[in-house]
Amino acid sequence: MSGPQTTPPLPVSEDADVVALLRAALGDRVDTTDAARHDARADKSGHAASGMPLAVVHAASVSDVQETLRIATATGTPVVTRGAGTGLAGGANAGAGEIALSVRGMQRIVEVRPDDLLAVVEPGILNGDLNAALAEQGLWWAPDPASRAISTVGGNIATGAGGLLCAKYGVVRDAVLGVDLVLADGRLLRLGHRTVKGVTGLDLTSLVIGSEGTLGVVVGATLKLRRLIPGEVCTLAATFPDVRTAAVASSAVTASGAQPAIMELMDAASLAAVHALLQLDPPTAGAAQLTIQTDGPAAGEEAERIADVLRSSGGTVAVSHDREEGERLLAIRRSMHPAMETLGTTLIEDVSVPRSALPAMFDEIARVEREHGVVIPTVAHAGDGNLHPNFIFDAVPDEGGVVEVPDHIWAAADDLFRAALRLGGTLTGEHGIGVLKRRWLVDELGGDQWELQRQITRVFDPAGILNPGKVFAP
Amino acid sequence: MSGPQTTPPLPVSEDADVVALLRAALGDRVDTTDAARHDARADKSGHAASGMPLAVVHAASVSDVQETLRIATATGTPVVTRGAGTGLAGGANAGAGEIALSVRGMQRIVEVRPDDLLAVVEPGILNGDLNAALAEQGLWWAPDPASRAISTVGGNIATGAGGLLCAKYGVVRDAVLGVDLVLADGRLLRLGHRTVKGVTGLDLTSLVIGSEGTLGVVVGATLKLRRLIPGEVCTLAATFPDVRTAAVASSAVTASGAQPAIMELMDAASLAAVHALLQLDPPTAGAAQLTIQTDGPAAGEEAERIADVLRSSGGTVAVSHDREEGERLLAIRRSMHPAMETLGTTLIEDVSVPRSALPAMFDEIARVEREHGVVIPTVAHAGDGNLHPNFIFDAVPDEGGVVEVPDHIWAAADDLFRAALRLGGTLTGEHGIGVLKRRWLVDELGGDQWELQRQITRVFDPAGILNPGKVFAP
Repeated sequence: MSGPQTTPPLPVSEDADVVALLRAALGDRVDTTDAARHDARADKSGHAASGMPLAVVHAASVSDVQETLRIATATGTPVVTRGAGTGLAGGANAGAGEIALSVRGMQRIVEVRPDDLLAVVEPGILNGDLNAALAEQGLWWAPDPASRAISTVGGNIATGAGGLLCAKYGVVRDAVLGVDLVLADGRLLRLGHRTVKGVTGLDLTSLVIGSEGTLGVVVGATLKLRRLIPGEVCTLAATFPDVRTAAVASSAVTASGAQPAIMELMDAASLAAVHALLQLDPPTAGAAQLTIQTDGPAAGEEAERIADVLRSSGGTVAVSHDREEGERLLAIRRSMHPAMETLGTTLIEDVSVPRSALPAMFDEIARVEREHGVVIPTVAHAGDGNLHPNFIFDAVPDEGGVVEVPDHIWAAADDLFRAALRLGGTLTGEHGIGVLKRRWLVDELGGDQWELQRQITRVFDPAGILNPGKVFAP
Repeated sequence: MSGPQTTPPLPVSEDADVVALLRAALGDRVDTTDAARHDARADKSGHAASGMPLAVVHAASVSDVQETLRIATATGTPVVTRGAGTGLAGGANAGAGEIALSVRGMQRIVEVRPDDLLAVVEPGILNGDLNAALAEQGLWWAPDPASRAISTVGGNIATGAGGLLCAKYGVVRDAVLGVDLVLADGRLLRLGHRTVKGVTGLDLTSLVIGSEGTLGVVVGATLKLRRLIPGEVCTLAATFPDVRTAAVASSAVTASGAQPAIMELMDAASLAAVHALLQLDPPTAGAAQLTIQTDGPAAGEEAERIADVLRSSGGTVAVSHDREEGERLLAIRRSMHPAMETLGTTLIEDVSVPRSALPAMFDEIARVEREHGVVIPTVAHAGDGNLHPNFIFDAVPDEGGVVEVPDHIWAAADDLFRAALRLGGTLTGEHGIGVLKRRWLVDELGGDQWELQRQITRVFDPAGILNPGKVFAP
């Protein structure tokens, strides 16, 4: 049985030209244009790596990935794996001296098995493209990050993505049976299984989900599918005099035993910005909104029960049994990101708290706004307790269009993170640690667990060439 | 930040009397009676460790567990953690020179939060006792191994247990948010989170689930709850002329898009043995049975759709809308284990295959029976593809009531395991590797993954004192 360290290194001198080696092995899949290298520096967080990567490798196959990693190991060159670059924590940003390894071009659907409710895919396929193909067979991969039209399945796995439907239909971790992983030294491991149940050995599949490129490169995934939910979808839009009342109402919905598919909360600043963007009449000053969908065989009945809870909690409620009208109502929520861009530069945060603590978390956000003199429009996946506070600030982008988050914004974010932890919450519900939250990781994990986790990454990647400086960087 | 190896060892000489140290620290919670040490050798698999452990520590608190592990680390003494001893793979069997650490006495429900759908419990509580308490609040922890009346939540976590309801309601991995883990050196880590979503760092909670005592001692768990499903439960009992027809019918039910809560398959030998035990009229020779339950708001309608599929597949179907009648029908399935005991000594196996491969797996079982001249009555959780082939043999128990599995039975089991792997399946769906299946682990994982997993256990337990000889033993 061979250990991870036993693969013989390529016979390469220390000053070897990494790009030349890559090009000799991979030809024109090695891209050293300024445009490609510049794009690989940044994601959708606004953060960018300092400097530009050595090259972008556009992998077209598992063996391209293996070859890249063999060269990286032989030359001690860091590798940053990228998909569509839609991350919000800087986790896939590649900088000076690094190889940016793009798996975006590996986007085949290898297999769909409706009888076993599974699909095998390559990592670069967009979530939305996969689901469009699955829908033709009445199937569905449930994870639905708001970025689903533009983010890849591999990126969803690397971050452990969530989305709007999680409380009812689960997160990525609930929807992946196995992953094929290329290790730092180029060896390929097949983790997990194709069966509903399987407890053979340690669950390395779950360990890879959310590991943000630090354990290996995901080159394939066996996904657990659902059948599309037949029947009616009901949508409720409820307005409340203020965000705290809306948050209390959302907790009351959860406590009532109802299980909506979607329950989204928008505070007054978010709602006002979206109304302005969409040229709708301005909302009542201070008003917050809950948008809720029910589905399945009892969708209508459940919507009526939820409407009663919302009215008892002080809401003004409209119920629609029309799917298209429902989509129009949800479009207000889905326009959040472009609306924020109209207000200034944003730092999108991602804390998650137990659902009963949502009202208290909104109190904390108001306190942070007040004490730090900042504006933090916030939306929440209220069905699962995940909040996205958007810190708005003015900043001058550098020549590449990239901005640095100012210190006073980080100070306010720090205050907010600590409040979430005090409430039994977590730093990141679905975006990951990446670069932007690594300095708070030890606060949540504690020193012992932080060190243990870092040592686990070293078992997969003894030389530390996989996404160094991300997640566990000191 | 301190690393796992940095805790200073207790100043103990190499020939220290481990039992004396334990007794000095833990008093009468250290049990050296022959009866206790004898019981700790075995589980429900029939396998027993050779020799007797040094002592059984009946831990009453987290600090008892920490103290035991500090002494174990200082003296280099192996520790085998045990709950109720209902395992089926020998994973909790303690032998010569080892400390058996029982957490059965740590059985408090620390917290139940209906509003957040979570509970915090100690590991020794029985699954059935927990669910009885939760039911009073309309709540439910979904994992339902057939042993639920006698097995602990900690044991369910250690094995990654499944059960009857998994296809619809998930396995243990889907129902645990966090665990408190005492490491080999006695340090306590709090893994996971209390929120629906959380992707801070690596998912060590999932890594601990199913790790069979090799990473640490689970001393607490934060469980994800469901609300009890209101409304009708419908039960279908369908008989088929032979087991292959029944297996094809079960695959047809899955492929139809129906989602029964329970779908259990019994072959002719199982059915005949249970009918004899329960003094029912003998079933038709060769006949196999599917027992199916539907629940939720569309239970009745779904039962009728499933009945149509079963009839089209050659079944004779009875549908009951009465909950008690349903329990009587399921009692036939639940009597499988006592019925097997009437036939001889049994080795209960646990392979799992993709659901579409169930008919092919039953063909393989028939082939193994024929070629090896053995009898293998088999039940299957047909809703998820997990089979329990029962190898029946005659054996003379040793003075402790323990039997060794004869070589010709292992040869037949080996043939069956390899068949399951060829069909895209896995060695163990829910019982774990323990001692009994460790020699096949490398066949499923491959040498590289086997070694990587073993190295991960060493990060948690550098000296290798946690359950040595289990799972990863060579």
